[in-house]
Formats: sequence, C-alpha cells, structure tokens
Amino acid sequence: MGPHPAVAAIRLAVRRTLQDVLADAADGTAAPAGSPPPPAPLVLVACSGGADSMALASALAFEAPRIGLRAGGVTVDHGLQDGSDVRAEEVAERLTALGLAPVEAVAVTVGRGAGPEAAARQARYAALDAAALRSGAVCVLLGHTRDDQAETVLLGLARGSGTRSLAGMAAVSGSPAGGPGAERRYRRPFLAVDRQTTRRACMVQSLPVWDDPHNADPAFTRSRVRHEAMPTLEKALGKGVIEALARTAQLSRDDADALDAWAAQAERTVRVVPSGGPERGGATRAAHAVVLDVAPLGALPPAVRRRVLRRAAVEAGAPSGSLFARHVEETDRLVTGWRGQRAINLPGRVEALRQGGTLVIRQSES
Amino acid sequence: MGPHPAVAAIRLAVRRTLQDVLADAADGTAAPAGSPPPPAPLVLVACSGGADSMALASALAFEAPRIGLRAGGVTVDHGLQDGSDVRAEEVAERLTALGLAPVEAVAVTVGRGAGPEAAARQARYAALDAAALRSGAVCVLLGHTRDDQAETVLLGLARGSGTRSLAGMAAVSGSPAGGPGAERRYRRPFLAVDRQTTRRACMVQSLPVWDDPHNADPAFTRSRVRHEAMPTLEKALGKGVIEALARTAQLSRDDADALDAWAAQAERTVRVVPSGGPERGGATRAAHAVVLDVAPLGALPPAVRRRVLRRAAVEAGAPSGSLFARHVEETDRLVTGWRGQRAINLPGRVEALRQGGTLVIRQSES
Repeated sequence: MGPHPAVAAIRLAVRRTLQDVLADAADGTAAPAGSPPPPAPLVLVACSGGADSMALASALAFEAPRIGLRAGGVTVDHGLQDGSDVRAEEVAERLTALGLAPVEAVAVTVGRGAGPEAAARQARYAALDAAALRSGAVCVLLGHTRDDQAETVLLGLARGSGTRSLAGMAAVSGSPAGGPGAERRYRRPFLAVDRQTTRRACMVQSLPVWDDPHNADPAFTRSRVRHEAMPTLEKALGKGVIEALARTAQLSRDDADALDAWAAQAERTVRVVPSGGPERGGATRAAHAVVLDVAPLGALPPAVRRRVLRRAAVEAGAPSGSLFARHVEETDRLVTGWRGQRAINLPGRVEALRQGGTLVIRQSES
Repeated sequence: MGPHPAVAAIRLAVRRTLQDVLADAADGTAAPAGSPPPPAPLVLVACSGGADSMALASALAFEAPRIGLRAGGVTVDHGLQDGSDVRAEEVAERLTALGLAPVEAVAVTVGRGAGPEAAARQARYAALDAAALRSGAVCVLLGHTRDDQAETVLLGLARGSGTRSLAGMAAVSGSPAGGPGAERRYRRPFLAVDRQTTRRACMVQSLPVWDDPHNADPAFTRSRVRHEAMPTLEKALGKGVIEALARTAQLSRDDADALDAWAAQAERTVRVVPSGGPERGGATRAAHAVVLDVAPLGALPPAVRRRVLRRAAVEAGAPSGSLFARHVEETDRLVTGWRGQRAINLPGRVEALRQGGTLVIRQSES
C-alpha cells in the first residue's frame, strides 16, 4: 500500500524539484579526477511551522536521501509576538525529529519604514540568504502553494501595472544577496499543490502545525485577500478560480518574458550610438543619456515600444519603482503624438525630450 | 457657467469618439466632384434605458450636431420580462425627446442553448447589426463603463486562459455580421468613465433611468461579480481596484496584440511549405495539414511558440473555442520534450504528430 494521496502529491512535487536541483548542481561542479568524492549537496527548507512548510520539510526529509542530497532546515523568528523564540525552537526540534540536519533557528529584527509585511519579508530573506551561505546549501525550498500563488496574482492585479505584475512567484528565483548559487537559490515546489493538500499531508503524518495569527489578521492585505476576497470570488465565479489565477501567473510570466526579450532586442536596433563614445558605460554603468531613433521606435507595437521607453528611462537613471505607466505614456506621446511638447520630467531627475528625429532621455540639467 | 462636471465628462468622452468616427468616415467616402453634398453620417446609440446608456444618448444628442453628425437611437426588447415591450416604447420616446432621429424599438427572440447571458447578448447584437444596416449608420455607440470593463477583466481572469482573456472590451470592435463599416461598427466611449458619473449625469439632467432587475439577479455571473465580488475586492485591496482592472485590460490588449503579431510572423518562418503545393488554400481556406520545422520552433520563447502551435491547430481545423491550454501544452511537448510520444488528438478530429525534424498538424485519418 502506497502513502496517502496527499503525501504522495507533496513528495512528487519535491522530487521533481530535487531532480532539477541535482541537474543544476552537476552542471556546475565537476570534481577533478582523483579527488575524494564531494559531500552530497545540501538543500535547506525554510519552515515557519505552518502546514505548508511542515509538509514541505517532511517531503524533503523523505526524498532528499533517496536522490543523493542532504536535507537541512531553517526557521526564522521574526520576534513580532511574545514567545516567538520558544516557538522557533519548537519548530527547529520538529525539523530535527524529521531527520533534517543541520537545523537552525535564526532570530531577526524586523525593520520599519516599508509596510509591516514587506519589512518582515525583507528580514526573512536576508536571514535565509545568510543561512544558505553559512551552511553551503545549494538552494532553499519555500512552501508557497497554489493558493498563495493565486493570492499573489490578485495582489498584482490590484496594482494594475500589467502582465509582469500578474506573473506571481517564480518556481525558481534568485537572490540579490549574491554568493554561490544565488541566481537559483529559492525554489517553490508547491506552486501547483493546493493548501488543503499540505494540511492533509501533515494530518495523516501526525505532524503538529502552527497557524500564524498574522495570517488571519485583517490588518494585513494578504490576510484580507485570503479570508475575504478569495471566498467571495469563488462564490461568484466558481471553485476553479484559484486554479485559473495560478494558471494566469504562468501564462503571464511567459508572456512578460517574451515581450521583455523583444524589447531588449528592439532597443538595440532603435538606439542611436553617440559617435566616438562607447555604447555602454562599462563596469560602472553610470547613468547617461540614451538617444533613440523615433522612426523605427514609432513602428514598434505599443506594448514593445513602451517597454523600450521604460528600459531607456531606467538606464538614464529613473528608479524603476517610481516609474509609473503614466510616465511611460507621456514619454510615448513624444514619439507617437508629437506636436512640439516640452521636455517631460521623469522620476530620479531624468528628462525625456524630442530633438528632431530622436528622443533623448537623460539626467536633467536643471 | 459650464455644465455639471459629470455632464462635461460624458460629453467629452463622446466628443472624442465622434471625432474618431468622423475621421474614419472621411477616409472612406470622398464624394465625386460636382455631386450634391451627402447627408451627414448617422451615429446610433444602443440604449437599454439604464443610466449608462441614457447618459450616452444624452451626450450623443448634444455633441453629434456640433460636429456635423446625425444621432439616432435603438433600444432592444429582449422579451424576457412582462411589459418589456411597453418599456422599450418608453425608452424610444425618451430617445426621441432627447432629439435623436431615427429612433427604433426592436423586439428580439432570445434563443436557448448557450447560457442566458450569452443568448441575450447574441440576440441583441444581431438586432443592433440589423438596425445599423437598415439605417445606414456608420457606427453604434455602446454604454459600457469602466466598471463594466473591470467586471469583464475579472470574468476573463476566472477563465485562466491568459493575457488575451484579460483584455476586456475594445474601445472599437467589429461585427462578424459584415456590411458597410462592420470592421469598426461598435464604439465604447465610456470605457474610462465610471458608472457613478453616468448616474450623476442622468440625475442632474433629470433623465429618468430604468434599472434592469437582471443586473441585480444573483443567478447571473456578472451580477454576482458586480454586487458581491467587486465590493469585497475593493474592501480587501482598496478603492483603486476598478481602475487597476480597467488599466489591466488596456495593457493586456496591447501585450496580446504584440505577441499575436510576433506569432504570425514566426509561423511563416517555421512553416515547411509542401513542395509544389500553394502556401495557402486560397479563398476556400479548407482545413489542411500544417507542417512546422521543429528546430526554429524550439528556439522561440514559450509564449510565442504556444501561440504558433495554437494558430497551426486552428488552421488544421481545430475549433478555436474547444482548443484549451492543455492541448497546446501537450502539442508543445512534441517539440520541447520529445521522447517518442504517439500522435496527440486535438479537438475537431485534428492530430499533431512528430515526423523526424518536423511537427505535422492535420485532420486525423482514423
């Protein structure tokens, strides 16, 4: 008799991820002939003690040794609730009991400034990055489920900034912190597994789980999406809505990637290289003027043209996060609706101006 | 003193649309020299008697004569409620009172088969097409607002079929019914105007409006989206969610258009032309085999490759509406995950099979 279907589902999802991890690790580390065999690569699981990440930890503990990997765990104590340190130790003990080694409980200080959710996330990823580097782990598994993915798409939809914002979380994502393997450090094996399955897998394996009260606190946007918006959407649109949102993430990600590739290629063809100057600023990549040829730019589809303009503005020094659709649209009117407008001010003291048949995007002189 | 801001807003939206209509009409109809001046082009408004379309009718009545256009109206009696014929006559009288001419009330019979909303929509557009042809109108204005657009995006999201399904309604759309001007027959001036503004404009102009009880009937998906899903989304995500959804429509439409253009171009380059045969079937466009070269196909970004495969399957005779993402993905695995699979059955008795370095999509022989 095989394992319970929920346990089989979580193990299959983890197995597929570990196969990818192993293939990636083999690419990078051919040992010199005659040297002793290297230790098995280590995979960490980030575990809050909730059902999703406890299920993930249990599946990793089961699958890793069968495929020639070591499995370890890390839990982050955000210090936001009384007794969170005790709970973190408990989670670490549970991970050890599953057979994971090494296991670490790491305390972080959550900053202020950004919203509470963003600040906690920032502190958490910094701690996970550090744990991965300390332990030499090839990657860190995260327990985000299909339900989390659906919520992320809905949150992206509320920003209204287009296809990329609907792309949700990636199955493989990098870390800005750098270090070995940073480009593919985070893996999300459960993006196609629903939350209910992870709960059931914990139940049938008698794994105790801990429900973070923050997840039910209506002060947090994601909590409102989970407990209010999603149930109402399911009632209005049918049970398939979570799957539809998760599928939208994958399709949107592919579409955004293709359009970004097109824009990168198009940017090279519409760019006017200043005579005598190098095309790029070299290693320093200092903000500089970008000069684009208006005629071929105007012939691009609007979706590609706007992406080229956004890239050019960022290259000229506009902070990506402050550059909104309306800035790009106004810049676009210098190309497609030219009637002698003045220079347009963009964030980061960048200006866009028309000079004859060219569009110049540069640091403002004033 | 100018008009109330709500009235100014609806008139501005209609004026911009009419300027486009006039520019399009001028393109098509240069009168021969010496002939008598043609009558002013006629624009119809489709009016249910609700606030959105009554506001539209009032703005059309005001703006059309100022720009050299005639304004008429049509109201459709769906015959789904007792007394709907009387109400349609009332609406026609109100349109006449606004100064519109000609004005028509048209009774239709709503079929069965498709869902009740789809059947009513089908009957309505057939009646509007016929009214446009009878009266020689250059176009028909529809009262869909930004709120309707947001609802449409949410309904598309629930289908989970990607960027095109998030594109909402177009500001200008054609009619499959054909006839003069069919390519640009329907115009939606209010896609950036909110529902509240149309209500206010009716109120301050003392226009009586009629609330269709169907719009509040929870048996209809759109009604549930409007009265349950949207308010909950606004509560969870903030008041800007309707604007964000409407903006998503525009961005998704542009992205889908660009990717479709790329796929159309890519399809030509990966297509293997059968020696001796014509590249296209000519006017009859009979379903036939499409042969694609696997190597360049595999080099395309996934988003473009899947669109090429979908186009090829439809050209080979698969009905577009029955061709789901999973069919396209399975076909894609013949390209990117080839390990000797058998032919894949697609809807419409179409099959996809790998033959050496080519992918063949054709009518099934069995």
